[in-house]
Amino acid sequence: MNFCSHCGHTVRFAIPDGDDRPRYLCDECGTIHYQNPRIVAGTLPVSGSRVLLCRRAIAPRKGFWTLPAGFMENAETTVEAAVRETLEEACAEVSIHGLYTLINLPHINQVYMIFRADLAGGFCAGPESLEVALFEEHEIPWDELAFPTIERTLRHFYADRGDGHFPLHISDITAADRERYFGSA
Amino acid sequence: MNFCSHCGHTVRFAIPDGDDRPRYLCDECGTIHYQNPRIVAGTLPVSGSRVLLCRRAIAPRKGFWTLPAGFMENAETTVEAAVRETLEEACAEVSIHGLYTLINLPHINQVYMIFRADLAGGFCAGPESLEVALFEEHEIPWDELAFPTIERTLRHFYADRGDGHFPLHISDITAADRERYFGSA
Repeated sequence: MNFCSHCGHTVRFAIPDGDDRPRYLCDECGTIHYQNPRIVAGTLPVSGSRVLLCRRAIAPRKGFWTLPAGFMENAETTVEAAVRETLEEACAEVSIHGLYTLINLPHINQVYMIFRADLAGGFCAGPESLEVALFEEHEIPWDELAFPTIERTLRHFYADRGDGHFPLHISDITAADRERYFGSA
Repeated sequence: MNFCSHCGHTVRFAIPDGDDRPRYLCDECGTIHYQNPRIVAGTLPVSGSRVLLCRRAIAPRKGFWTLPAGFMENAETTVEAAVRETLEEACAEVSIHGLYTLINLPHINQVYMIFRADLAGGFCAGPESLEVALFEEHEIPWDELAFPTIERTLRHFYADRGDGHFPLHISDITAADRERYFGSA
């Protein structure tokens, strides 16, 4: 951020009076530009014993497999965001069971929220997917998953599936976890 | 938003190519300025049979009672945000049990996440609170609560406390709910 989005003046990065962390400040109009984490909402769509995955057609991690998920938009709910992303990326309608993983990624200012869901009908590759397919557990392309959040959600699912109890799992992924996963990418 | 925060050029509000909703666009440097919901993280601090509430010293809803909660910051986790807000507003340390209410407010682009917690020691009014106190159920100032999210979280708590089972409650608060609560404020 270089300029004030309200008045166009240059901003400076400093701690406002009464605050405890630096913000982008406009000395011209007085606006404090707060920046906050974004929610990535998505689903784990299940059909019988199989799970739906999408192969990404766009960066980052083009060509790798993911669960349908994306940035939550203004004016929608978390469930609406998860359902919309599933429709956009996999042309798939789902019925939502509940929030399944909540994963904080503080180094990139994201919070993942993945809902467990039942696939309600067909599917196809949306514009952001190269292909969409259903996988049995032994078919999951573990070495070709797009993000550590996706691997973690799938690991929880297969661990929980034995007794059919799917509690919410809250956890964090750090920069170090991400580096182990991606290399330095 | 009137100006591009990257290059200072004026922005226009229009649907980008390949998108389906309007964004602030800079024709000079090509930046698309996405805007996304913010997370409000907080706790429901419990001490024996009592619940901790804070009376707000700042707008909005100055003078009304709330659970300690506030906007999640970049570079922290949801739990860290909830713990920090509790320390800032009530000078209180807590141990977190789990996510208790997740409430979408799509009309104001917020997602509330309140964690159930045990109060670990003392408390006092932080700079954003006029006073902080513990309440038995019959003492809760239902008509002087700051926000419908707070009332809803407390109602769930007292309904669940009977059998000691506190599942995650996901729900939405709409503009209509908010108007019933606040009047037209």
